[in-house]
Amino acid sequence: MRYMNIREQAKSVKMAAPKMAGSSGEQRNNALKAIAEALKKNQDKIFAANKADLEQAEKDHVAAAIVKRLKFDETKLRDVIAGIHDLIHLEDPLFQKQMTRQLDQGLTLIRETCPIGVIGVIFEARPDALIQISSLCIKSGNCVILKGGSETMNSNRVLFQIIYDAVIQSGMPENCMLQLEARSEISELLTCNGDVDLLIPRGSNAFVQYIMDHTKIPVMGHADGICHIYVDKEADLDKAVSVIIDAKIQYVSACNAVETLLIHKDILKVFIPRLYDALKEHQVELRGSRKIAALCPCKESSAEDDKTEYLDYIVSAKEVEGVEEAVNHINAFGSHHTDCIITENQETAEYFMRYVDSAGVYQNCSTRFADGYRYGFGAEVGISTSKIHARGPVGLEGLVSYKYKLYGNGNIVEDYAKGRKTFHFLDL
Amino acid sequence: MRYMNIREQAKSVKMAAPKMAGSSGEQRNNALKAIAEALKKNQDKIFAANKADLEQAEKDHVAAAIVKRLKFDETKLRDVIAGIHDLIHLEDPLFQKQMTRQLDQGLTLIRETCPIGVIGVIFEARPDALIQISSLCIKSGNCVILKGGSETMNSNRVLFQIIYDAVIQSGMPENCMLQLEARSEISELLTCNGDVDLLIPRGSNAFVQYIMDHTKIPVMGHADGICHIYVDKEADLDKAVSVIIDAKIQYVSACNAVETLLIHKDILKVFIPRLYDALKEHQVELRGSRKIAALCPCKESSAEDDKTEYLDYIVSAKEVEGVEEAVNHINAFGSHHTDCIITENQETAEYFMRYVDSAGVYQNCSTRFADGYRYGFGAEVGISTSKIHARGPVGLEGLVSYKYKLYGNGNIVEDYAKGRKTFHFLDL
Repeated sequence: MRYMNIREQAKSVKMAAPKMAGSSGEQRNNALKAIAEALKKNQDKIFAANKADLEQAEKDHVAAAIVKRLKFDETKLRDVIAGIHDLIHLEDPLFQKQMTRQLDQGLTLIRETCPIGVIGVIFEARPDALIQISSLCIKSGNCVILKGGSETMNSNRVLFQIIYDAVIQSGMPENCMLQLEARSEISELLTCNGDVDLLIPRGSNAFVQYIMDHTKIPVMGHADGICHIYVDKEADLDKAVSVIIDAKIQYVSACNAVETLLIHKDILKVFIPRLYDALKEHQVELRGSRKIAALCPCKESSAEDDKTEYLDYIVSAKEVEGVEEAVNHINAFGSHHTDCIITENQETAEYFMRYVDSAGVYQNCSTRFADGYRYGFGAEVGISTSKIHARGPVGLEGLVSYKYKLYGNGNIVEDYAKGRKTFHFLDL
Repeated sequence: MRYMNIREQAKSVKMAAPKMAGSSGEQRNNALKAIAEALKKNQDKIFAANKADLEQAEKDHVAAAIVKRLKFDETKLRDVIAGIHDLIHLEDPLFQKQMTRQLDQGLTLIRETCPIGVIGVIFEARPDALIQISSLCIKSGNCVILKGGSETMNSNRVLFQIIYDAVIQSGMPENCMLQLEARSEISELLTCNGDVDLLIPRGSNAFVQYIMDHTKIPVMGHADGICHIYVDKEADLDKAVSVIIDAKIQYVSACNAVETLLIHKDILKVFIPRLYDALKEHQVELRGSRKIAALCPCKESSAEDDKTEYLDYIVSAKEVEGVEEAVNHINAFGSHHTDCIITENQETAEYFMRYVDSAGVYQNCSTRFADGYRYGFGAEVGISTSKIHARGPVGLEGLVSYKYKLYGNGNIVEDYAKGRKTFHFLDL
């Protein structure tokens, strides 16, 4: 597909989609086995390519935290291969009958799962992400167009070639996978509505928002993650402190890290000094409302803080009258990602969880649990804050749609319209 | 909300959404009962308003077929009230637990259905549609913004006021429903992303396409419906003729009417003359490929016919080599709505149904069955050709999302990251 433009290439991928959709679970598992074997066989080639990426990163003075993600070593290879074997053992997500209904004698409706078609995934510079995404798409019978971060260009090129060759040799249709390399190709990809059925962008807020604003292809994902923790007046304050610290610093740049604390007004005096000390101990800057700033030596927050995703060692805090104000604040300023209440009062917790309009509503645990792996989904393709299609952490299920099959024997609608026949709707 | 612009009004509706989402099934059923009673009590007022619409339609020389849809009489009132009672008896679509999983001791994940939020529905000039859509949204706990066809403006105004008053008096939150009246307000509605969660446009292809092209709000629906029937060489030709006639003329302007016939080359000589006669008998114009035009006195088709949704007494036909070519043609030129194979060979049928990428894939029955009522869903909000979210005819289920609730006891992620604790994933 070398000399075609991206639209033409995407069309070739779309042409492969029905064949991919028709492949059996066994065929797709064989492709996954072939990938696992090929990765192992070609590990030296992969590590050499990765070394080139790492050297380039060093030359470019890439931050140490990012370099850590670029690195693809034996441990990571072992982990992704284990991940592929986990995937092989999962039930086939396709051809699952979700409904079998006799509409009338000899007229049977079956709703059956099928793949979405062509998935475009734009992801961060992590070689293991390329392998995971490819495997998830193959398991779910989807064709995939991949665009990884440019910092892992060498690794991606080698990995893609190994995976693609293995997949084709195992009998999957040609052009069922495509890799884009140039960043400029992304804008062309965004115009491929009709051929690309779903886009999954992962990366910075600004980047995801850009994708969402510049394509007619449905987008699954989340732009920002402004997560809240509300500390109720009936909170266990030990739990509150420990959950807040974990939610803030366990992985500070994650979308499910907490950014805003809402504190019940009645517990400010006892809680704020403790909170301040704990945050200080972990090098987290607190930005407090006027009332909170009066109780500890913290910087005063502004209205801007309510809508800021710091992704950094900063957290803002403000007091609220109670759970109702907390819920209203979260629904107005949050990003419908993951929000938590700390309380021992179950009724208050239920109110919070019912009225907060977020993909994840938590009681007494860290917002960092919002993750496909931690939910037991196996690998995750992303976290969605949309309420259309998949919501929250998305595993295989989010890559699947369904179709209605209707088996008849010459049945016509006119018979039912004229009352000569009637539906009896019998679920089988 | 009289003096606000549409964006401000939509924001007020959004503010009501969490309260609506938190309402119990009983409260929502009570609101539905209140609607049914209010409609009955106010029937004279409704009929008077409808009479004004009918008189205006007569003045405007509106086509008889459309006038039939505008008319709202005692029969239609009885039908919609019966529909509301059916809805009341359906199980509550909200608070359904789709998953209960212990991630670890004392850390329980529940996936529970919840409403989407605010649904914007733009629908045809049919007073019963306004009532059905409102009832479906209330049953599913969604707020709704309605814009009906202008030909039923008087009926809509009266109906909306009756329904809204009944709903509020029964305890639903203020602003949970809004009606737009001016066509110009639609373009403002399209900019309400963030406050409107889903748009459902019903109407002409051009109109739906316009909506899809001019909003960032997710859209559920379908622009065109180019449905196919493939007549296999092993077809029962009696069934073929009767299914084709039904699929074409049972309701000629429906999205699920057939537009293109694909005929196996081996049966052209026997089938085409029979098909031509049957179509002629029902005043349907046949446009055939060169080979088909050689077998009957029909007009020759052009490439344009392959992608035309006639919505009229016209059907095009072309020959294919076999099921594979039929599938490829349908995937390339169809609109992924509903496509049918006529064959007695089950293997060929399964091939067709597996590889055709459409919301509905049928064997030996009319494409006109693609309809929420005929699938036994009760009322339908629309038919979706998207593979994201609901696909095919969409009932209550398409108005529902889900959220993840996580109940902990101070659990933090760091314990699992450091191996001090491990997940055990136990489905309860």
